[in-house]
Amino acid sequence: MLDYALLDALAAVVRHGSFDRAAGALNVTPSAVSQRVKLLEERVGAVLVKRGQPCVATAAGALLCRHTERVQLLEAELGGGMPTVAGALDASRPTLRVAVNDDSVGTWFIDAVAGFCVERGILLDLVIDDQDHTAQRMRDGSVQGAVTTQAEPVQGCRSTRLGRMRYLAVCSPAFFERYFSAGVGREALRRAPCVEFNPKDQLQKRFVRRITRAQVDAPLHWIPHVAGFLRCCMSGLGWGMCPERMIAPHLARGELVELTPGRALDVELYWQSWRLSIGWLDDFGTMLKRRAAEFLDQGRGA
Amino acid sequence: MLDYALLDALAAVVRHGSFDRAAGALNVTPSAVSQRVKLLEERVGAVLVKRGQPCVATAAGALLCRHTERVQLLEAELGGGMPTVAGALDASRPTLRVAVNDDSVGTWFIDAVAGFCVERGILLDLVIDDQDHTAQRMRDGSVQGAVTTQAEPVQGCRSTRLGRMRYLAVCSPAFFERYFSAGVGREALRRAPCVEFNPKDQLQKRFVRRITRAQVDAPLHWIPHVAGFLRCCMSGLGWGMCPERMIAPHLARGELVELTPGRALDVELYWQSWRLSIGWLDDFGTMLKRRAAEFLDQGRGA
Repeated sequence: MLDYALLDALAAVVRHGSFDRAAGALNVTPSAVSQRVKLLEERVGAVLVKRGQPCVATAAGALLCRHTERVQLLEAELGGGMPTVAGALDASRPTLRVAVNDDSVGTWFIDAVAGFCVERGILLDLVIDDQDHTAQRMRDGSVQGAVTTQAEPVQGCRSTRLGRMRYLAVCSPAFFERYFSAGVGREALRRAPCVEFNPKDQLQKRFVRRITRAQVDAPLHWIPHVAGFLRCCMSGLGWGMCPERMIAPHLARGELVELTPGRALDVELYWQSWRLSIGWLDDFGTMLKRRAAEFLDQGRGA
Repeated sequence: MLDYALLDALAAVVRHGSFDRAAGALNVTPSAVSQRVKLLEERVGAVLVKRGQPCVATAAGALLCRHTERVQLLEAELGGGMPTVAGALDASRPTLRVAVNDDSVGTWFIDAVAGFCVERGILLDLVIDDQDHTAQRMRDGSVQGAVTTQAEPVQGCRSTRLGRMRYLAVCSPAFFERYFSAGVGREALRRAPCVEFNPKDQLQKRFVRRITRAQVDAPLHWIPHVAGFLRCCMSGLGWGMCPERMIAPHLARGELVELTPGRALDVELYWQSWRLSIGWLDDFGTMLKRRAAEFLDQGRGA
């Protein structure tokens, strides 16, 4: 079998981004970590870590890290059923590495999973990405589960519907007055600055296409930050699509107004995770589906 | 001189991440964009864009994009003083590309700059990174300014102190009861799960070193998301360092408690920007320093 002391060192370097921090986490000297990774590289015959600030895995290194994480998960599962084994394991707490979209983390995800994770002693390792791109993280095997817009199961995974996040196009009242007092048409949308999260964020473009039946090139702010995005809309810098549940209080207080009331965009979210049956990963999925029902709309989209 | 129609196409592809979206933004066909980039690559004798999802600049491409952005900035500056020139420019609104740390965007940055940007018609393009790493974005020239912990000016830049963000170590009352009822010592910190933003985030480790005079390896949650990080602390998943201004209401309501009252960590923030004098970039810096005084503590750190 593989030498897991070496794999553990590799995984620690990649996770912590440096040999020094990996050494701290493993409670050995940096030179011991360095020797283990070098030895593994000699055995495998490939460079596994690109040394730098931070250190990152090469393609070969990433494959080995993923394998190591899966084995660690299986060990944690084993430890859960056998207390004597748990004592022999370095870490008795399993880490769940999941890809989640920014708006889910900003609105419901943490509250939905906190109780379960506290109870089971699970540690969370979140990878944040756009909801249309989290499934990619499942495909490349770098996470054990993902909250995604992709309904169709990634190979080797199963998919469950969680519910719907509703997005509204909003801006400040002063912004509305300045740009949209004569209506929300093509010309107004061409002049009014729009807030986009990042180049992957297609929500604003989808809204514009639905309203105008055309593509409109607006001046763009780029704000890859959930709270910053909302502040940008509230402070009159631009208009943008925000999750209804996040902005409900601001709409109620009149700090934000809708561009076109009643014209929401719905995003369907799914949970995908490995079909490899690991007891608590299955339990996590079951719990997530049940809890999501409290936080997400369950009807079908508009 | 260089052919700026070609450079404009290159910059659009890199900014939008795809030839199709760049074509939309430039109002030409995708094949026109593709031809322009290819022609530029032939003239320069190097590949400038790595084709993919998204398309990214090669090192040579990044240099040309940065140059193009600087010229666009200078054009915007020129247009501000000459309305007839402004009319001839594609974009009469300058875009300010700045690197800002996550917690600043989550707490004060947008509110501080919104008024100025609305008044001058400036578009924001934020690059989010850890406060200890934003200066790197200045060094590699990919942003025009940065909110950073580095006081010493990056070459070709000037540096101004903005003020201090104060961080408190906090957790939920139930979490405190479970892990710290007998005191916040080494053993308790080794058992209590800790929330870290990402491997660059050193605040929790600095706090532990200060309290225990030792390095302690705690179970870690990784939550690279400002709101998610806070929700993790509030829901009892772990303890973490949060900006005092962000959590003041939660402390007041007793939803969060301090691990060690009176033992804050202070982070000094600086504004660094190009010394190349561009009128409104200088004005932005002056405004930012003035406005920061309303949002950040101005005394020297603890």
